[in-house]
This record gives sequence, structure tokens and C-alpha cells, in this order.
Amino acid sequence: MGIRAGFHIEYECENETPMLLVLKVHPSRQSDLRTEQTLTFNRAIPVRDYVDVYGNTCTRILAPPGTTTISTEFELCDSGLPDLVPEQAAQLTIQDLPDDVLVFLLGSRYCETDRLADFAWMRFCQTPLGWPRVKAIIDFVHTHIAFDYSRADPCRTACGSFIDRAGVCRDFAHLAITLCRCMNIPARYCSGYLGDIGVAKDRYPMDFGAWFEVYLGGRWYAVDARYNIPGIGRILIARGRDATDVALSTAFGPAILTHFEVIAQEIV
Amino acid sequence: MGIRAGFHIEYECENETPMLLVLKVHPSRQSDLRTEQTLTFNRAIPVRDYVDVYGNTCTRILAPPGTTTISTEFELCDSGLPDLVPEQAAQLTIQDLPDDVLVFLLGSRYCETDRLADFAWMRFCQTPLGWPRVKAIIDFVHTHIAFDYSRADPCRTACGSFIDRAGVCRDFAHLAITLCRCMNIPARYCSGYLGDIGVAKDRYPMDFGAWFEVYLGGRWYAVDARYNIPGIGRILIARGRDATDVALSTAFGPAILTHFEVIAQEIV
Amino acid sequence: MGIRAGFHIEYECENETPMLLVLKVHPSRQSDLRTEQTLTFNRAIPVRDYVDVYGNTCTRILAPPGTTTISTEFELCDSGLPDLVPEQAAQLTIQDLPDDVLVFLLGSRYCETDRLADFAWMRFCQTPLGWPRVKAIIDFVHTHIAFDYSRADPCRTACGSFIDRAGVCRDFAHLAITLCRCMNIPARYCSGYLGDIGVAKDRYPMDFGAWFEVYLGGRWYAVDARYNIPGIGRILIARGRDATDVALSTAFGPAILTHFEVIAQEIV
Amino acid sequence: MGIRAGFHIEYECENETPMLLVLKVHPSRQSDLRTEQTLTFNRAIPVRDYVDVYGNTCTRILAPPGTTTISTEFELCDSGLPDLVPEQAAQLTIQDLPDDVLVFLLGSRYCETDRLADFAWMRFCQTPLGWPRVKAIIDFVHTHIAFDYSRADPCRTACGSFIDRAGVCRDFAHLAITLCRCMNIPARYCSGYLGDIGVAKDRYPMDFGAWFEVYLGGRWYAVDARYNIPGIGRILIARGRDATDVALSTAFGPAILTHFEVIAQEIV
Repeated sequence: MGIRAGFHIEYECENETPMLLVLKVHPSRQSDLRTEQTLTFNRAIPVRDYVDVYGNTCTRILAPPGTTTISTEFELCDSGLPDLVPEQAAQLTIQDLPDDVLVFLLGSRYCETDRLADFAWMRFCQTPLGWPRVKAIIDFVHTHIAFDYSRADPCRTACGSFIDRAGVCRDFAHLAITLCRCMNIPARYCSGYLGDIGVAKDRYPMDFGAWFEVYLGGRWYAVDARYNIPGIGRILIARGRDATDVALSTAFGPAILTHFEVIAQEIV
Repeated sequence: MGIRAGFHIEYECENETPMLLVLKVHPSRQSDLRTEQTLTFNRAIPVRDYVDVYGNTCTRILAPPGTTTISTEFELCDSGLPDLVPEQAAQLTIQDLPDDVLVFLLGSRYCETDRLADFAWMRFCQTPLGWPRVKAIIDFVHTHIAFDYSRADPCRTACGSFIDRAGVCRDFAHLAITLCRCMNIPARYCSGYLGDIGVAKDRYPMDFGAWFEVYLGGRWYAVDARYNIPGIGRILIARGRDATDVALSTAFGPAILTHFEVIAQEIV
Repeated sequence: MGIRAGFHIEYECENETPMLLVLKVHPSRQSDLRTEQTLTFNRAIPVRDYVDVYGNTCTRILAPPGTTTISTEFELCDSGLPDLVPEQAAQLTIQDLPDDVLVFLLGSRYCETDRLADFAWMRFCQTPLGWPRVKAIIDFVHTHIAFDYSRADPCRTACGSFIDRAGVCRDFAHLAITLCRCMNIPARYCSGYLGDIGVAKDRYPMDFGAWFEVYLGGRWYAVDARYNIPGIGRILIARGRDATDVALSTAFGPAILTHFEVIAQEIV
Repeated sequence: MGIRAGFHIEYECENETPMLLVLKVHPSRQSDLRTEQTLTFNRAIPVRDYVDVYGNTCTRILAPPGTTTISTEFELCDSGLPDLVPEQAAQLTIQDLPDDVLVFLLGSRYCETDRLADFAWMRFCQTPLGWPRVKAIIDFVHTHIAFDYSRADPCRTACGSFIDRAGVCRDFAHLAITLCRCMNIPARYCSGYLGDIGVAKDRYPMDFGAWFEVYLGGRWYAVDARYNIPGIGRILIARGRDATDVALSTAFGPAILTHFEVIAQEIV
């Protein structure tokens, strides 16, 4: 299956503003790219890429005063298969987890494991270890939170979603990640394109999406607490401890997002 | 100057409990060690070290049911000089910061930069860039928070300290780190021995301490918002985004700390 | 396209022998796995995975005296498309290369850039920058070395292949990598399954293969100097500076490989 | 003890030449710096620092046509104590080595472990494990190689020194590292200032020096096969697998070193 994806974003800055962008397809999908994937700007500005500790490609720019547009469009091939459901994958004991996975058991900005541990153990300790426990968590989160774009709040944490019972895809992810970590199941946050393929077909307007991954049976599996069914055609951009690490843009100064358009369509 | 340091810690677990310890002197101080530094346990248990993404030595153990004691004692040489005060060090622009430093501008579990940014800019935007701004922040934090062991709270964040106006050394560090990051000054959390040397001479009982580092003029400098004077004889154990990353112990199951004793004394 | 792949390997050790294995599919292909991928041993032995600085999954084992067998078999989905040929991709100037890419310009155990630089510049300086230069290098290597299994030599370096004019796939890769690096084109070594798909259809018996990647136009592209045509169905295991970093097994003591069998077949 | 150190280096380039410099004091000594440590150039050129996978501070510059000078001078405090001799430190089994240490058992550009393994085992297998074995290796290397500045050869490997029996400090280090690795003792290459302090008092003219570190009893210890006595006042610049990783400068194009001056003196 071929996917054509990209975006067009505009920022308005009063002053010269350094920005950190996490907008390139993740290196692990690089070999699936069938065209170049270049960030294009509306004027010549300083741009530099680097790879962060989580393996994401980050881009540093210095946005001049006025309007800065950032665009890309590329083609990528994809299996077209839905996310694998690890029904048989065992939950590893803490002792058997690789060292680099342990950090995804700890708390982070939007995932207050220390605050939700008691609830998590009370609610999920009876569920069987492994996938059934993860499934119980995403079922809970999927039902507990009502999706509502109008109630998006960039400061809302997992505790916030737990109390507010409303949010957007990042809130579903943060709460589910937190509960998994509380139950000693490593979980990490993912951002990327979801587009109009598979589960997200009805979504309008198109947008970047957030989901997460759990570590079971010796590898990471993509899971989605918002849609709660296996997705098709995800294009990973970045992974991290939570949304802090993979913010599409972090502006070090005032920058107003004035236009935002994402595409991710099957090539037919 | 020679320092003799170490600790004796006891945990009580009902079940076999995996634990993650961050208790060894940081690799950057390894060449100052004049004796071996080994963690000793009261019984033979599985132990393994690894280095995390921040460069800290972490130790994984599997504590058996019952009492587990962990001890170490070692000698180390130290300059005996107080923390350098970077009065002339320039505050680098965001563009000039090295890539690996950027993560220390982002929010983290106990440092809600998104929530405190408005206050920080309002309060500190008039201060001169660089060290004077850092000094204004630590002066503020030093005065704003009242040190009170009895009000220690492991879940308290920077916002919590800001509101509660009480806390222990980690709270001073978290609030100061958050305010520095809000002002685009990279800041990272440090834990280690402070002992009875220099600023901490009056402290009783001895304990591990928390301080932080700011990035100015191309390097990191140790700063201490609790004591607010240059310290002598710090022995770094670990650095991270905040206390989450350098918790002395993270138990993956119930574990009660039943004894805790730290020494760090000048050898005379 | 589905691929079923795996291997069966046997080692004979007289004494207990620690071994380092690099035999698991690379994390970047993990999301394409449709079944679990577990290393199976003929007896219970200590096994532990970790991720090295290049992002490869490494496995540490302690092989007991006698025969140790290691097997795996798994299914994976693949685009079925040939390696992308980056005909239009620009060769970045050194200044524009990301920091993490620079190490792949330096010499390494089997890639003596210092010894081959003069030849490389003499021979390839007239070729156009970018892909045409890479193509000239792989054309040269493909013709210069005669493939000959009987002349495999695990100590042979790029200079060795250059002089001997004979070797196996790793020698093609090492010489081409070295020449690319001499010409300031970052190049890294790859190992993995090639199987009976695409270019390697005629190969007998099946084996793991070596190829390499070059950094052009902002990303890495797979290239193969042995076959010199775009491959289909490569399954990456590991990347590194050269074969040292991705040896399928490194035994710290005498260990004799007594059986070796690899499969990688299209599922029809 | 205070040390004043620095250098003055001049390069002559015909064309604009990108260079990679590893010339700043290692981050692990940063807290000992009592003054700023800035690289100064004779004209305004693009400069950028980053940290490599070994934890070294690297500097990227674009040297313009003509003469480029690079200078620094700084003060640092030091214990004044000689290198610790780990007489009692145990040699860990391979199984007990931390994951991040394993790479320092593998071969590298100038350390052909595969070629020298047989000699190493024949020669050193009777020596007691741990420090006595390391000492036997450095005694051997110290005697086997004759120090001779006039026979410096930047392409010489450990095998080359073994055969030539002549070389400079880097050759002593490479041969000793290789033999240690062959005997399953992790060893890594170090570069830095040695100055006129301690062992190097008689050296003329002053220069940067190379030594190495071995991993025994759970930590790294500095060792010097050239002088074969514990050194005083080493100032570490960088560590790596061998000289490739820590070259003071790597020029990507012709660059002639026209002046070179290093100081490292005790402040009295």
C-alpha cells in the first residue's frame, strides 16, 4: 500500500524565534520512503537536524519575524496491515526487561505514575498479566474519557484526564501510558500521521495523531486507547516519555500557529 | 582534601521486589576515588549495573522477602574549593546551545514549565541575562520556600512548592530548575552527598542532598537554591531532568525504608 | 509481501563461554514482525538483551560446555519493492551533515580510510558529487573484487580486498564503505537476511548477507556492491562502523561453529 | 594543586575546509575548571560543539582559506595525587561486565585484536588475572617499543608497533589496549594534557599525550604504558576505542599543521 502524506503549517512570530521541530518521519520508517522528505520553508532560514536520545529526528530553526511556513509532502509504502495484537505475548518480569526499557516505567511530565498507582492496582490487579491487562486498561481509558476537540488543553496531565473525563488523543494516550506503567508494563508515547486510513477514516479535519506502545514479550507494540481497534497506516514521527518529548514544535518565544493542514492518504 | 563517604540503608519487603538503585558515585568523579566503591548487601542477591541515558550508573537488584541492607563506604579526593560562581559567564542564545542540552529546557514530571512560564517572565524578565538572572531566581526560591523536613512530599512538583511555600532540598531544586528553564536557561537536577562540609555543616542528621546545574557560557555550573551559597565537597551521584530520573531507589512493589544513614566527612 | 525467515546455528564449546550475539531483527523492522521473534536454545542458559550505541539489539549468553544451538523463525511483512536508488539525492557538504552521522566518515577496524584516501581521490574526484560518485565506487568495487567463498578471511580489511581482489560480501561492503568515506560520503555497514528473494535468488546455500548504507540528501540509502543491483526483501539485523560492530557472534573463548543454516523465503 | 593549561595551534588551508576538533577538556573534568575554557580563533568562523557517543565534547568548524589559529588557556584544580594503582581490583568475568563496557573488548582501527589474540594468550595466560595481568602487559609494551618521535606514523596500528618496535605514546597505548582486549580486559584510549608534571617532567617540547584506561573491579583506571609509572596531573580531553575517535583534529580536505604549542604547568 502506498501513502502520500505531508503537512502545511504556518507560524506568526513578532520577533526572531528559535524553534525545535519534531516533524520528520522517524528513522525507523526511512527505508519505506519512496520520495525525498524535505522540510520546505517560505524563506531561507537556518535549519539543522539532530537525533535525540529517543532516536527521533529533531529540527532546529530560527524563525524570523513575520510568517514562517513549513511544508513537506512525500510518499511511503506500508504493509497495509492493521496493528498486530499481541494476544499471546507474555508480560516480562521487571528483572527480564532490558535496561533501556526501564525509563518507560517511570513518571514523566504528563504521566504521574506516583499519583495514579493506587487506583491502577485496585482496578487492574485482578486482570491476567500481559495483553489482557493492557486491553483492560485501554478499554477503561476508552470509556472513561469522552473525545472532545473543544476541550483540548496542552497542560492536561493523566490525572487531569482522569478527573476531567474529556480530552483529545494525547489525553487518551497519557492516561493509558500512566496506568500501564503503574502496572509495571513499559509504555511510551508516539506521535505521527494517522490520516484517513483504517480507524481514522471518519476523522475530519485530518490531523497528526498520538498513540502509544507497550513492551510485551520482548518487543514494542502499537496500541491506541482513543480508537481502541488496531490501526492501519500509522506513520511514526517520534517516540518519547510523553508529549513533552515529541511536541511537533517547541517555540522559545511567542509564536502563533496560524494555519495547520495535514494529509495522509492512500495512493490508489 | 579527602572525604570519607558512604551509607547504610535497609529495606523491608514482603515479597521478592525488583529495585532500581542510583547510589554509586557518578562516573565523572570515578577518577577521584581512592578506594573501591562497592555496594554490599546482607545476602547474596542478583545485582547488575548499567549506565542510563544521562550517564548515571544505575544498579538493578532483586530484593528477596525480608530485610535487605545496602551499604558502601569509600574515600575520595576533592579540591576543597567552593562551587565556582559564573559571574561573567554569558547566557547562550537558544541557537548556540548544543543539541544535547536542549532537553534540559523542556518540562518534566516535577518541573511544569508550561504552568510557570507566565510567572517566570513577569518576575524575571527585567533581570540581566546570564548569572544575574540565575541568581535572581535562586534568591527568589531561597526566600519563597521555607525548609521543613516535616513537610516533605514525594509527589510535590514545582507548582506545588510554589503554592505550598514549604519543602525540602528537592523542592528548592525543582522550583529553581523550572524557573530557569522558563527563562531559556538549561537546568538539570543533581543528587549526591553533601555531608558536613562547607554549607551543610549544621545539617543534622546527614542525608543525601539535591542541587542543580545551569548551563551558562558553554558549560554546566552547580547551584544550590536551598543554601544559596557556594557549596564545598559535593559528591555527585546522578543527574537528570528531575528527581524521577535519579531516585535513590525505585521499588517495583512494596518496599519499606526501615533504616537510612549517610556519612560524608572530611578526612583529617 | 510476507517473508518467513530464521536460522539454526550450533556452537561447540569445551568450557563455559560468554558470547555476544547480534541475531535479532533490528528494532526499526520490529513493527513489521507478524509473529514473535524469540531466540530458542537447546537448554536453559542465562540470556539478556541490550541495545548498543548503534541501536542494535544485542544478546549476551553464557554457553555451557558442549553443544549450544540457537534458533529462531518468524514472519515479517515487506514492501516487496527494490532498494530505492537515490539518483537525485544531493551529497551534503560536511557542514550540513548531522552530528551523529560524522562517525561514519572516520576509519574503523576493517576500513582504513587513511590508507586508501589517495587512491580514492585520484580515482573518483572527477565523478559528479552524490549518487553518481557512489555508483562509480560500487561499480569499481563490484568489478575489482571477485566473489569467492573459498577465500573468505575474517581478518581481511578494505586494503586487503583491494590487494587480494577476492572476497565475500563483507569484503565488497568494507571496500566500498572505505572509498565512500574517503570521498566524504558517510557510509555504514549492515548485516541481515537477504534470502532467496530478488537479487540473491541464485545464492546457495542461503546465508546472512552484508551490505551498506550511504547518507545522501538527508537520509540513509541501502546499497549493495556485491550484487550491484537494487535488492528486494532485505531484513536488517544490525548496523555499525564495520563488521566488528555487528558480528553475528563474538565468543570470549574458543567456540566452534558446527552447524549453520539460514532461511528467508517469500510466503506464497 | 592548580594547573594552567592550554594550546596554540595553526593550520594552513588552501580551500575552505570543514574540521572536527576534539580539543576541549572532557565534561568529567568540567567541575574542576576554575576559569572559562573557550576556543579562540584568529577570525570569525562558524563553530559548533556537540557531544559524541563516548561523551567527548567535539567542535565543528569551517576553516576559511589561509591561516586559522586555535587557542585556549584555562586553570583547573587537580588532586595532585598519582594515578591509583588498582592492585586489589578483581578482573570481572565477561558476564559481570556492564553492557556499555563490552564495546571496549572489540577490535578497532588501530587495535587488531583478531591478529594479536594468539600472541596475547600465549604470552600472558600464565599471569594472574586482574592488575598483575595488566601490569605484565604494560611492562611488555614498555620494553618492546622504543620511544622515538622521529618514527611517528599516523597510520601505524598495534600490529605495526609490535613489528616495528618503535613509536610514540599513541603506539604504546594502542598495543597495550589491544593486548588487554585480547585477554578480555576492557581497555579504552585516552588523550589529554600531561604537561610538565610528574612523570612527564623531562619531556620536551610539551605535547598532548595519549594513555589508556582499563576496566577492573567495576571502574576504569588510567594506565600509561609509555612511562609505566603512575602519572600526576593528567587532564583528560577525550576517550574512545582508539586514536581515530579522539583525533585532535580531523580535516575533511587538505590542512597543514604549521604551528603547535601546548602548555600544562603547575600553578605555584
